[in-house]
Order: sequence, then C-alpha cells, then structure tokens
Amino acid sequence: MKAIVVGGSGYTGGELLRILARHPRVEKITTTSRTYEGEPVTKTHPNLEGVCEIMYEKYREGVDAELAFLALPHGQSMDYVPGLLENGVKVVDMSADYRLADENLYEKYYVKHRNPELLGKAVYGLPEINRGKIKKAELVANPGCYSSAAILSILPMKKYPGQVDKTKIVVDAKSGTSGAGAKPTHLLQHANVEGNMIPYKVTGHRHEPEINHILGEYIHGVRVSFTPQLVPIVRGILSCAHIFCDAQGLDLKAHYRKYYGGEKFVRVVETATVKDVAYSNYCNISVHQDPNETRVVVVSAIDNLIKGAAGQAVQNMNLMMGWDESTSVDDLPYNP
Amino acid sequence: MKAIVVGGSGYTGGELLRILARHPRVEKITTTSRTYEGEPVTKTHPNLEGVCEIMYEKYREGVDAELAFLALPHGQSMDYVPGLLENGVKVVDMSADYRLADENLYEKYYVKHRNPELLGKAVYGLPEINRGKIKKAELVANPGCYSSAAILSILPMKKYPGQVDKTKIVVDAKSGTSGAGAKPTHLLQHANVEGNMIPYKVTGHRHEPEINHILGEYIHGVRVSFTPQLVPIVRGILSCAHIFCDAQGLDLKAHYRKYYGGEKFVRVVETATVKDVAYSNYCNISVHQDPNETRVVVVSAIDNLIKGAAGQAVQNMNLMMGWDESTSVDDLPYNP
Amino acid sequence: MKAIVVGGSGYTGGELLRILARHPRVEKITTTSRTYEGEPVTKTHPNLEGVCEIMYEKYREGVDAELAFLALPHGQSMDYVPGLLENGVKVVDMSADYRLADENLYEKYYVKHRNPELLGKAVYGLPEINRGKIKKAELVANPGCYSSAAILSILPMKKYPGQVDKTKIVVDAKSGTSGAGAKPTHLLQHANVEGNMIPYKVTGHRHEPEINHILGEYIHGVRVSFTPQLVPIVRGILSCAHIFCDAQGLDLKAHYRKYYGGEKFVRVVETATVKDVAYSNYCNISVHQDPNETRVVVVSAIDNLIKGAAGQAVQNMNLMMGWDESTSVDDLPYNP
Amino acid sequence: MKAIVVGGSGYTGGELLRILARHPRVEKITTTSRTYEGEPVTKTHPNLEGVCEIMYEKYREGVDAELAFLALPHGQSMDYVPGLLENGVKVVDMSADYRLADENLYEKYYVKHRNPELLGKAVYGLPEINRGKIKKAELVANPGCYSSAAILSILPMKKYPGQVDKTKIVVDAKSGTSGAGAKPTHLLQHANVEGNMIPYKVTGHRHEPEINHILGEYIHGVRVSFTPQLVPIVRGILSCAHIFCDAQGLDLKAHYRKYYGGEKFVRVVETATVKDVAYSNYCNISVHQDPNETRVVVVSAIDNLIKGAAGQAVQNMNLMMGWDESTSVDDLPYNP
Repeated sequence: MKAIVVGGSGYTGGELLRILARHPRVEKITTTSRTYEGEPVTKTHPNLEGVCEIMYEKYREGVDAELAFLALPHGQSMDYVPGLLENGVKVVDMSADYRLADENLYEKYYVKHRNPELLGKAVYGLPEINRGKIKKAELVANPGCYSSAAILSILPMKKYPGQVDKTKIVVDAKSGTSGAGAKPTHLLQHANVEGNMIPYKVTGHRHEPEINHILGEYIHGVRVSFTPQLVPIVRGILSCAHIFCDAQGLDLKAHYRKYYGGEKFVRVVETATVKDVAYSNYCNISVHQDPNETRVVVVSAIDNLIKGAAGQAVQNMNLMMGWDESTSVDDLPYNP
Repeated sequence: MKAIVVGGSGYTGGELLRILARHPRVEKITTTSRTYEGEPVTKTHPNLEGVCEIMYEKYREGVDAELAFLALPHGQSMDYVPGLLENGVKVVDMSADYRLADENLYEKYYVKHRNPELLGKAVYGLPEINRGKIKKAELVANPGCYSSAAILSILPMKKYPGQVDKTKIVVDAKSGTSGAGAKPTHLLQHANVEGNMIPYKVTGHRHEPEINHILGEYIHGVRVSFTPQLVPIVRGILSCAHIFCDAQGLDLKAHYRKYYGGEKFVRVVETATVKDVAYSNYCNISVHQDPNETRVVVVSAIDNLIKGAAGQAVQNMNLMMGWDESTSVDDLPYNP
Repeated sequence: MKAIVVGGSGYTGGELLRILARHPRVEKITTTSRTYEGEPVTKTHPNLEGVCEIMYEKYREGVDAELAFLALPHGQSMDYVPGLLENGVKVVDMSADYRLADENLYEKYYVKHRNPELLGKAVYGLPEINRGKIKKAELVANPGCYSSAAILSILPMKKYPGQVDKTKIVVDAKSGTSGAGAKPTHLLQHANVEGNMIPYKVTGHRHEPEINHILGEYIHGVRVSFTPQLVPIVRGILSCAHIFCDAQGLDLKAHYRKYYGGEKFVRVVETATVKDVAYSNYCNISVHQDPNETRVVVVSAIDNLIKGAAGQAVQNMNLMMGWDESTSVDDLPYNP
Repeated sequence: MKAIVVGGSGYTGGELLRILARHPRVEKITTTSRTYEGEPVTKTHPNLEGVCEIMYEKYREGVDAELAFLALPHGQSMDYVPGLLENGVKVVDMSADYRLADENLYEKYYVKHRNPELLGKAVYGLPEINRGKIKKAELVANPGCYSSAAILSILPMKKYPGQVDKTKIVVDAKSGTSGAGAKPTHLLQHANVEGNMIPYKVTGHRHEPEINHILGEYIHGVRVSFTPQLVPIVRGILSCAHIFCDAQGLDLKAHYRKYYGGEKFVRVVETATVKDVAYSNYCNISVHQDPNETRVVVVSAIDNLIKGAAGQAVQNMNLMMGWDESTSVDDLPYNP
C-alpha cells in the first residue's frame, strides 16, 4: 500500500514518517513540503537517518497513494481534501477543518469553510467512539490532542446523566511544548519554558468547542470549561477533568475499567502520569472519587504527538484499510 | 536582633538561613539539626559557602533568640512552641500545627494536638489578610504553599457573594519538586520526574481544609475542591482557580488590581507564570473572564519556598518586629 | 526460547523486560527480585501495564531458561555465573564482573574476584569489535555505558598509531540520571539535578580502566583520561573524545564513515546529539577535525540504557542465538 | 550617578537593568532598543514589573550618563564607543569588539575593526587579573562567558610553567541556553533542547582565541583547545579544564585556595557545580588531581549571565567608579 504525508516537515509529519517507516503494510511513502522541497527528510528529522531517507517533494495533483495524511495548518487542509477524495484517495486530516460537523461553529473559531458540504461526510477519528464509522470512512478528521485526552476521560460519565452537573465540568490540561509546533517563537524558547509554567488561552481555546461538540452527542447539554497550560516537558498531556457529581454509592473506577475493558489503547490505572504513556499510543486514565466533596476527578494522560496526533492517525488508517488497529503503533512507553 | 532556625537542614530551613544572612536587622543566627549537629550549614546548603558558615547545633531549652522559626515536620512543632512562648520568644511556625483554629479539623487531617489551647492564640501568617494581627502576634502560623497561592487568588471574590457558586470552586495546582522536601524518595528521583507530570492526593490533600477554613471567614460556606500535581520544575506553584460566577457586567481584572493596589508582593498581571515570581516573594495573579461560559479563571503563581514558605515567614517576622515588611525579601525574579 | 532477567526491578532490568516482551523469538520471560518477590513487574515498571504482567520470583538454582541476563550490582553477578554455565545456560552479564580479563585490574577497582578462572572465558560484548566471538560465547560481559560510547569513538583511530598522541586522549562525558540507577539518593533528587551540572569521580572513575583495557588491544599503550558529569536529562550519554593528532592531510570523517559503513547501529553524522539516539540502540558519531590545533574531537552519543546496557545486551543475545542482530532492538529515536 | 544600558532588550540587557535597579549608587537608568523603542522594559523583562518601569528610548548622541553599558552584538559596539569616550562617558562593552588587543586576531574571528586605535586603550574586564587597570579605565571590554570560566580555572597554573604541557590543555565546556541569546531559533526551541545535549562549534569557537590571547600574557605559549556544548539548563556554565601536568608532589587544591584567597567572587570548593553559583556573581572552582595519570582537571562554574556577563560588568563599573566591588552583585545562589 502507498501512503503520502502532505506537510511532512513538522513534528506531526515527522512522527507519521517514523511510524509509517516501520509499518509492515506500507510499501511506499512519499511526503511533501514547500519549504524543504528537494531536501531529505532527515534534514528536519535527523532521527530517521539511515531508516527513512526519502526526499521532500512538491505536492502535485493526482498523488500516487491510496491514503493521504494531511499534516497541514488549520484552514489549508480543506483545499486538498476535495481533489484527493475525487481521485479515490482516502484522507486522514490532522487539522481541525473537518472536526466540527457544524459549519457555523467552525467558522466562529477558525475561518470561512470552503467546502462545508464535506463536513457531513467526515468521521471524527476517535476509534474508541467511532470505530465502526472509521472503518467505512473516506475522510477522517483526526481529533485535537487536548480533545482526545479530555473526551476519553469524560465520555464514560454518560452513564450517569442525572448525577453529573453537566454545565460545570472543568478540564484543566497541561501540555508539553511539542504540542505547539516546530516553528520557533519566543514563547517556545527553551530559556522561556524551562523552570516555568505558562497558562495560555485560559478561556476560549479552540479545543473547547471541539470537546463540547463531540461529547454533546453522548451527554446532552454538556458544557466543559477548558484551560490549557504549557509545561516544561517535550511530549505529553496531562488532563484533569473535575466533574461535580453525586457519586454516592457509585464505584466509578470499576465503571471505567469495564467501559474501556476492550480497548487496547486505553488503560485505567491507579494514577495516570505522562511518563507511563509518553512515546506510545496509550491513553492512561485514573479515576479519583471524593465522597465528601461530591466531586470526581478523572485524570488522563497521552502523548500529544502519538495518541494525540500521528499514532491515532495511523490507528485510523489501520481501521480504514481493514488491518489490525495496532499495527506499527504498539510501541511501549519507557521507564524511566 | 537574634534569630534561631529550628530544623535548618531542609529546603525551607536553608532558604530561611539565606534570607536571614542578608537581613540588616538580624545580628546573630543560630540553627539546629538532629542529623547534622556539629556540621557546618554549608554541608547541606553549599550555596551559603563563604556567607553563612555557622554550625548546626543541638536544640536546647532557653534559646538565645528573640524569635524562632520552626522548620519542622507537622506534629513536631507543637512540642517546641509552649516552651518558647513561655521564655518570651516569638515564634513563626512553618508547620501546619497552628494553622487551623479548629482542633477537630486539625486532628482529622494530622495527629492529636498536644496543646490545642494555643490554637486560638496563633495568627495565620498571610500578611495580605492579617497584617494588623501579625504585628501584635507572639505566634504566627505560616501558611501552606498551596494555600497561599489559592487563598490570594480567590479572596477578592468575597465582594461578590451572590454571583459566585461557592461550593463548586476548583483549584487545580501544580508544584515544583522542592515543595516535597529534601528527603530522597522514588517519587522525587530526577529520572522519575523529568518529562513527567504526576498528580498526587488528587482528592483529600491537607491544604484543602486549610484553604476552606481560612477563606470561609471571608466567603461564608465556601467549598474549594483542590487537586495538586507534581511538575518537572524545582521552584514554583501555578494555581488555577476555576470559579463559576455570574460575571456579566463585572470587570474583575480591575477589581483585583484595586484590591491588591496597596500590596507590594501581589502583582496583578496579564498572565501569571512561574518564571516571573520564582526566587522572589511575589505572588503574580491574572484574571481571565469568560463571558460566554460564566466562569472566571484566576491564575496565581508563587515561589513555593519564598512566598510559599521562608520569604513569607521573614515578611511575618518583619511585621512582628515592627520593621519594613519587605526587608531582605525584596529580591527580584529573573529573566530568563 | 526462554529467557530470565535476574534482578529485574532496576532501570536496566526494566528495559530488558520491555525489549524482551516484544521479541518475536522469546516465548517465555521470567524475572527475579529480592525486594519485589511476589509482586507484578508493573509495580516497578508501570509502562509495562497490560503488556508484560509477570511476577517477580525468587531466584532458584536450575532456572528454566536458555539464556540469563544478570542485571545485578558489581560483585554479585560472579556468584550466579558458574552455576548457570554449568547448567548450560548462556549468560549476558550487565555488571563489570567479567569485563576485565585482568584479575588484578578488576580487584583494584572493584572487589576480590571469586571465580577469576572464568575471566578468560568471557567475551566483551561490544558487537562492533567482537561480533565473531560473541556468536560463539557462553558468557558475555556487557560493556559499561560510558565505555561503549568512548571505545566506539576512539577505536577507528587505531589506523593512525603514529599520528595520535596516545597518552593524552581526554574523554569528557556527560550522562543522564538514569545511568546512576533507580535507588533514591540526595544526588539524584530532581531538585538537586534540575538546572544543574554535577561532575563526579572527576578522576579515577571505574570505566577508565575498562576503556583503556579494551582499547589497549587495538591501540597499544593508549591511556585515556576520563571525566564524567551528571546532567539534567534522563536518558543518554554525550561523550567528547579530544585526541591530539597530527591530522594534516587526513579525512577522518571519511575514514570513520568507511570504518562503520557496515554497522547498522553506528551512524556517522554531522553532529552527534543525544536526542538523535535516545530510546534507540544507535550510537551516533561525529568527527570534528581542527587543522590548526592538531586536535580531533570525536563526539559520540548513545542511550545509556539501550546501546549502553539493555539494547546491547539483547543485541548480544541475538548474536549468541544465531538470530538477526537487530531483532527487537531496532526501535527508532524520536523527533522531538 | 546616571547609567545607560544601550541595547536593553536582550537577556544581558535585562540582567543589567535588574542589577542596576537595586544599585544604591545608581540614581537614574536609561535604556535603548531599536525594536522596542517607546515600550516599557517590562514588555521584554516581565520580572521587573513594579520595580523598573522605564521605557525603551532611541539612542541619541550626547547621552545623559556617566557610564554606558553596551549590550550590543559583536561589530556594533565599535560604532558607539568613540563618541561616548569623547563625551567623557565611561564604557563597559559587553561585546567582543575590544577584547583582543590584536587587530588581526579580531578581524580573523569577527569583522573589520573600525577603530583599532582604541584596542590598546581597552582593559579586559576580569577583575581577578586586571583590578588595578580597571579602576583607571575609561573603556572596559567585558569578557566572554566561556572565557571567564576558562581563564579563572587555568590562570593559577602559571606558577608551574615547567610542569604543564601548555599546548595540550583541553577545555570542554557546557552552557545553558540563555547564553545563546533571546532570539528564537530552531536550535533553541524547548522541544529541541530538552532531554538533549548538543555540541556546536566543536572546534574554532570564537572564545578560543580570546582565552589564549588573555592567558598567553601569563602562560607564555599556552594553547587551549576549546569545545562548547549546549545543555538543557537555562543559566550556567560548567567548564572542565583538562591539564596534562607533572603534578607529583604538588598540592594544587591548596595552591588554588591560596591564589584566590582574597577574591570575594571566586570560591575554591570540593566540587564545582552549576547550582551553587547560578543567579549569583560567584565562580566556583574545584581542583581534581590524578597522580597516576599526571593530569589535573580544574572544574569551574559560573552563571553565564552574571559572572559571565552583567554581574561582572557591574563589578567593573563599581571598580571604575571607586565603589565597593560587590555593590548590588552580592546576591546568593539558591538551594535547591
């Protein structure tokens, strides 16, 4: 099978190339970059030295691939998707362009959509909720990193619509700096981040409507308040969902264990930490019930570039192609 | 003036020695340690080489000091306080032993109190709320690090008792590893913390009752839910108070600026970060109003060992002695 | 094939378990620990949750395994090796007990050797120099982490015995904290290491005689001076070999490229950095010639727990068993 | 006294402002920046909020100051110095423009010099070697950060010209990222530096001729080989000078202690580490003699922005003005 990574020079593109280079079913990989056209991918991803030594190409219509990963900025993917689909190329889009089925919502947080008619065709690529649909999809919208962590942590509470205070869920999430992309900025300077913690878009982050839009299908009327922070690690998100809930008599930990019992990539553990998932496709979840306070805290941890981006994208490709879901994304995290 | 630091070998003790060594009104410092008796303080605090070269002594009744800092574990301070007070020595206690005026509450979260009659005599050492009482106090209970950050961030909301949902305030706080003390543990190993984020005591942390006990005097019936996390920095706390609040029409940023207008050590800024306060006695606060979501997020940042411990303790000493409150604790943070 | 990891609870043991759990030829793994007997390996290695869920056992004579990895402290392995070999179990020893063929040298730097007659039987497990011998070995002494990095960086200079000042080679090496083991100490506390660089055993480190002993077989009379430092990263060694050398007219970079041309795990690159090898079995090497100064600097980078320990051990096992050398140790490093 | 910081928006400029803001003899500070003209200094140095709230100005001839700090890139300072000196303004130049008395050497490593006649007038601003000259100087060339650490570590060996192999001294130095300046680059991205060690300019770094030029006045014919590396800390340099030396019978540690006995800012300690000097003007030095190897390793540690830049600059100003040398630069380092 042949795959293309459109926009391979960023961190997500690099992780896609790393995973695809080891994928036993992917025979040929091509990748594109405007900035690095004609240069080897090892120029931007020196970790691939001796392993994936293809060159960045210019994007051309009529790509020789069965499936395309679009690792492009929000607002750009939508210019590539219609042509690819017309040519029978399946698409996994890493941007937000097809995540929100509601055109108005998308335009409120992003830009004007140039092919809103495709919104209904796209499947939100979180296998734990949409596995069946993904298998049949031509166009998968890969979830945002924060959204993946937040949705997986709150979703099982759909069983208790009466007990949960749905409009007062707080998600306080912390991300490593790789989540902000490869472009150098003052904010992301080592000297600025090391020894620091930096809240940003404290209210109004774009993943908030995404979380609410997707969760709302399962928990009607849910309103999650989302606050992100930058912390001095490279990879990983730790997300705390604070859920006010009449949890008397409930064993929520057992419920979560059961809920995710069949999921290979979701592990319900005693305490979710970043290290136990970093560099892997796992999402670890821990459930902390506070009987006195009538609050439940659900902590979730993922690697923002793997379960939060490239790993999940390949997981989606595996499903779309009818392969074992974990092919080439079953690497283990490390200790220490 | 003569001061003693009882228990000088830990991180808080070391910071007290560093600050006192530069204090123009403190003529003599002595310090004690069981483990390091007879050794120079530079053995545990090599930063003081050439500057503070006293030796650790054994604690003896009848200390030659006007004021004692007790940098001891919870449950131990209470054995030193009565004797010191009887001998006319003022006390700033860094432990939790005198923070909670309610004996039962203390015993629920700590151990049996051995001189509960002194609880009523102790003043909670947060100058921004108790400056007048501290000036006259014989016994000051220095606040917990998380508590300092959380209380300062929520307190000004007392102006709006009707608008705030008092029982659903979430404080999600992140601390550097110096907050966990100098004793080596697996949790605090560099290899375990670096690249990691680790939630702990997700519900039921001891600073939760402290926060509620103190804040409750100003916001009747308040119930803060508190969750701490360990992050890979050495110094600093970033605390996010998520407050559901009918904030329509309110300019809360302006309110906070005015409220803390006269406070030297509280700065209301655009975005509070750890770096802008680390190594200083400042508490930076930023206020983020979310009109749509009817939520206010108040972020506060302190250095856990300075405004969260030793700096605030010296600030309290300055007040108790009638000196300028900022003497020797007016060091500036660094960039970068 | 059945393998046993004796002493599985440390960092090296954990990495062995992680790699073996994915090894297609290893059907059964057992592991031992005195401290954790009867507990699941996930207690010490939570990254293995759901993947390697065996229990720590007590070590018993007559192990049911074809090959044993000894991940034990120096001085302990030698008590296990004779019995294992007698029972026909091949051994890869991670300790220093069989690295030095010279009994006196071993005893000068370590302890009295209790079976020195086996020293001559052991093969030093650096495949790049001993591949043939390792294939036939019953007992492989896995190299020290610093030694692996240093030897690989200097070895190709054996071609120029006349030009190199053999007695004035300086190796200045920096290691992450996982190299110091899993036992909590003050030195390894996060608060002590973060933002710090700490030289230790500045002269006289035990890997110095190991480096000279092994290199001496190829560069007669070599005397490397070795200085290690602890830096605030978890994984990785960066080693700079400063070699005074009459390098006029030589293209040493080309020589190194050719020398390591057939080696899968040694990559000669423009600039060797830790990130380009971390979490992998690669050793990256860069060669920096200084014509004016008649000095060559050869930089090498490895992951101390993989090419410097567990990865190289499995590479050795693969050779000893007649399998493809890279089986299960061909994971790629990450970017970023 | 009035001082001006020309080029105040970088890291060195910011540290100068921080130190000067607390200097009891400096009554007025002005600062310039092309990029930030008209903006408050707190825009680039938020740590100064509430403490130093001046605005960046445009540079104008005829500055109202007795002393000017030039925190400008190499090659730019030389355009400001002649005019300032003509107007009777003393100058401390942070760039390399006046560090090398030899015009040809400067031009080999930098650019064409536009007022080489001033080279002879400049004093190299390392108080430990030039205190007397600095007191009388109009123009002080503030040393490079690496140079300060290296020179102070090797200088006392001038006592043993016969024993030291002067042409084979290796200085292997590691710096935090603040040393590379405030401008965002890919190299300095947090995600690129964290968990990494990166050698750069492995041979031929510009501080090598500076070290040799200055040291050469004291150790005739010295040739130091210098290699720098970037490590994931913000502040600090650790420099290892590997000196081949017939040290039999010498007590070099005692010699260093005596040599620096009168120096307030040089501390000879058991083991020099970054943490024990960071955020201070101290240089810690440790001496490690290896009798067998006939090598001495001298480790030195400084804060690159303080003793390596702004702190030393103010130390020089204090000398030039006839004040106590340590005024406003006597802050202590921290533990932890």
